Amino acid sequence: MKLTVADIAAALSARAEGDTTLYVTGAAEPQAAGPDEIALAMSPKYAEALGSGRARAALLWEGADWRAMGLDAAVFVARPRLAMAGLTRAFDPGPGIAPGIHPSAVIDASAVLGPGAAVGPFVVIGPGVEIGSGARIGPHVSIGPGARIGTDALLHAGVRVAHGATIGDRFIAQPGAVVGSDGFSFVTEQKSGVEEIRETLGSRDQIRDQSWHRIHSLGGVEIGDDVEIGANATIDRGTIRATRIGRGTKLDNLVHVGHNVEVGEDCLLCGQVGIAGSARIGSRVVLGGQCGVSDNIFVGDDVIAGGATKIFTNVPAGRVVLGSPAVKMETHVEIQKALRRLPRLAAAVAALQKAVSKDGAKD
Amino acid sequence: MKLTVADIAAALSARAEGDTTLYVTGAAEPQAAGPDEIALAMSPKYAEALGSGRARAALLWEGADWRAMGLDAAVFVARPRLAMAGLTRAFDPGPGIAPGIHPSAVIDASAVLGPGAAVGPFVVIGPGVEIGSGARIGPHVSIGPGARIGTDALLHAGVRVAHGATIGDRFIAQPGAVVGSDGFSFVTEQKSGVEEIRETLGSRDQIRDQSWHRIHSLGGVEIGDDVEIGANATIDRGTIRATRIGRGTKLDNLVHVGHNVEVGEDCLLCGQVGIAGSARIGSRVVLGGQCGVSDNIFVGDDVIAGGATKIFTNVPAGRVVLGSPAVKMETHVEIQKALRRLPRLAAAVAALQKAVSKDGAKD
Amino acid sequence: MKLTVADIAAALSARAEGDTTLYVTGAAEPQAAGPDEIALAMSPKYAEALGSGRARAALLWEGADWRAMGLDAAVFVARPRLAMAGLTRAFDPGPGIAPGIHPSAVIDASAVLGPGAAVGPFVVIGPGVEIGSGARIGPHVSIGPGARIGTDALLHAGVRVAHGATIGDRFIAQPGAVVGSDGFSFVTEQKSGVEEIRETLGSRDQIRDQSWHRIHSLGGVEIGDDVEIGANATIDRGTIRATRIGRGTKLDNLVHVGHNVEVGEDCLLCGQVGIAGSARIGSRVVLGGQCGVSDNIFVGDDVIAGGATKIFTNVPAGRVVLGSPAVKMETHVEIQKALRRLPRLAAAVAALQKAVSKDGAKD
Repeated sequence: MKLTVADIAAALSARAEGDTTLYVTGAAEPQAAGPDEIALAMSPKYAEALGSGRARAALLWEGADWRAMGLDAAVFVARPRLAMAGLTRAFDPGPGIAPGIHPSAVIDASAVLGPGAAVGPFVVIGPGVEIGSGARIGPHVSIGPGARIGTDALLHAGVRVAHGATIGDRFIAQPGAVVGSDGFSFVTEQKSGVEEIRETLGSRDQIRDQSWHRIHSLGGVEIGDDVEIGANATIDRGTIRATRIGRGTKLDNLVHVGHNVEVGEDCLLCGQVGIAGSARIGSRVVLGGQCGVSDNIFVGDDVIAGGATKIFTNVPAGRVVLGSPAVKMETHVEIQKALRRLPRLAAAVAALQKAVSKDGAKD
Repeated sequence: MKLTVADIAAALSARAEGDTTLYVTGAAEPQAAGPDEIALAMSPKYAEALGSGRARAALLWEGADWRAMGLDAAVFVARPRLAMAGLTRAFDPGPGIAPGIHPSAVIDASAVLGPGAAVGPFVVIGPGVEIGSGARIGPHVSIGPGARIGTDALLHAGVRVAHGATIGDRFIAQPGAVVGSDGFSFVTEQKSGVEEIRETLGSRDQIRDQSWHRIHSLGGVEIGDDVEIGANATIDRGTIRATRIGRGTKLDNLVHVGHNVEVGEDCLLCGQVGIAGSARIGSRVVLGGQCGVSDNIFVGDDVIAGGATKIFTNVPAGRVVLGSPAVKMETHVEIQKALRRLPRLAAAVAALQKAVSKDGAKD
Repeated sequence: MKLTVADIAAALSARAEGDTTLYVTGAAEPQAAGPDEIALAMSPKYAEALGSGRARAALLWEGADWRAMGLDAAVFVARPRLAMAGLTRAFDPGPGIAPGIHPSAVIDASAVLGPGAAVGPFVVIGPGVEIGSGARIGPHVSIGPGARIGTDALLHAGVRVAHGATIGDRFIAQPGAVVGSDGFSFVTEQKSGVEEIRETLGSRDQIRDQSWHRIHSLGGVEIGDDVEIGANATIDRGTIRATRIGRGTKLDNLVHVGHNVEVGEDCLLCGQVGIAGSARIGSRVVLGGQCGVSDNIFVGDDVIAGGATKIFTNVPAGRVVLGSPAVKMETHVEIQKALRRLPRLAAAVAALQKAVSKDGAKD
């Protein structure tokens, strides 16, 4: 990949100065940048590091004096992380899926692939599958009967899309992601221990044998446009209605989404988050790594949960929550402070008891 | 899939009334049901929703007046979730693995597949493998040398069964499940920091270099009948004896079972549960999503642990536990209550200190 | 596998006595050992169990009287778990990847495989890949363009190595492990809710729409010698610089390592550990199962964290931490004790309030 400084400025809708015809082949941190790389120095704290690198061009903060830094060209950006999105997209060579359909792929005669598809070795595409134009499908991907995927899909190696899944445009799935595994839904013939303690809030009457009957998943998975799914993440099919992931939502690696779950639009579900069956998550919700959401509850729009927060009950829209069980951020901070002081508090109470009993003795 | 109301009643061992020759092609929630679908309205709260849908037949609660609801036929069920098991099984079209053995499959000449096997594209079956009748094996599955699997197995796409694993009848493995990865078992030449703090309960003498030697897993995996394993879940081989999963136990997506672990019969291990090496889990144990069990401990029969419970010490049979570290459900509730009152408690103690010191001052 | 007692002693650098020409075909626990197996009885507590088994040879503790136990031969070991490493390595038949390159493998003409490679069915190796001598590559593995892997690699079934990854010698990856998925790095055009609460520590000004732009991962993954990765574990590519795993570090199943993370040497990351983006982990760090580390923080050398510890802030070198949020082990023990006494403490405060108000009433 070889781009001029002008190309980069255009990709970022940003202003460039100096020799914008200069070619660069990649981006690097200021101190590590070579003469063919554009240095990432988007805040004044990187000014010094620029001097120790050998970059001739840099991404700089607005107002930086690029000539004084010994550069030949500069691109000025207002929001550094947003610039990173444009810059890295411009330089990404992609996963290297060769154009065309590899002769080893097994594609059912009734499947329809849009124009421009790149399909890797050993891909399996079932009957009735429909895939839009511009799809890139890595090796060992399997797509079950009747699944539909929109345009410009990027399915990395070993992705599994089950029969009947419906997926929007610009879908990205990292290696090993699974869309449409069967829901984890079982029932016993008689009331099970779990049902009993839900009714009695903890006490169990008698313990009986129980064996589990599977409730099959007929409901499929529906995924909106611009959704991404992380490596080895899993999304279960719904029971009767579909499990749904809204437009623009991103799931990180090893995230688990149970059956019947509904996730709204533009959410971020970070690494190893788990959403139990039939939970509903609003839009623009951000769940930090290793968060958990119980089955059948509701998490409102714009909720933000810190890492490892465990949500057992409904959360109203807009709330910031932390901890296990999840509480409002302020409450969590207060409880944590009190906890650290708890040994001291216990000592104070013991001292008081002594003082008061002495008072009592004096009576 | 097209069934009569009478077929459905028979599948559920339930009583039907009205025009039981009516055909339906699927099931739906009451308000969404079309004229070809049977509505799921197994409790009086769904009666109204039935009116807004177009179903001609419904699954109803005992005693419901189906004629008054404008239906042509009805099936009466006593335990709704159990009915869902039968109903969804009846309508499940399955994952669409074509009958017969796909010509691309690489099956060792010494492997034995029972009659009726359906084997998808790019499946690899090693030497000495034995698989019972009626197996359905999805694309990209690999089964290592000498593994044995019972009858009616359903291995979804990309399942990995390692060499020497022994698995019972009616095994179901969701996409990407791994049976028989190597155990995570390492040892240093000298005593490691972890060994030291286990002995000293936390204090460390001196810190030394440590490099890890692998303890290989010779022990394999033994799985009983009617076991299911979720998508991308992993079960490690044992070191000397096998890792064991008992009959009827179900593992959800992304569950991790370490080396030498023994899980009893009819357990449910929900999404992202982790069981560390050499732990023993009794029968009919239910571990909610994201639970963890430490290595070498024992969890008794019929234990139920709520979501995200972390079990560090043995749990006696029949107990309901919650929290991290896991405590009895009642204790957990009490502690949580006290925690929320903790800031108030601290204020009360401060007030008391002031009052008592004033008393003291008066002396 | 058939070894003499002398072979085993040599493999363990240990002393043998008795008939060291005796052949054994495997190892077993004392009570389960047959006449062809060497019994594992490395501490006096196993002496009795030896009597109930049928082993003729055993691994024994130093000083044990093997003749009195009715054995024909014995090997004496000082550090039992270390002996297990040698013994299990000696007996491990391996995953059964047949020698040579399976004709179905798709290997780009520009890829270079060292001598002695065993490559299973349906493997895909991209252009420019370099793999050292002695590689064993299981079925359905894919290796992206330009990836480099050292000597004696063992890649189990379905492992994914992305384009451009650099990996040292003796690399082991369990089934389904993913090296080089894209980082989970997104940015909104305007300031997002998460950025806002980071600045304000919890309060949110106004809630706006947000849609996420991907920051692509140009940085690859660099892995040192002697690293192992568990089943279905995932390691993300870095953004600009590489995500790095140091020499000798072992990752268990379902571990997640985010983009830009640096992990030092000789660490153990147990099952389901998650390390968020740009965190740095020192050397010889041990993180128990289900630990989490927040993004951008630093965990010093020789830190040990118990199971399910959640690390939100920097941890200095050598510390032993527990809990969520992680605190020093002693602090954690103290807090847990105080927590269990909390209901009693509350009762004591209530009693004090009564006593003091009575005192007050008397004034």
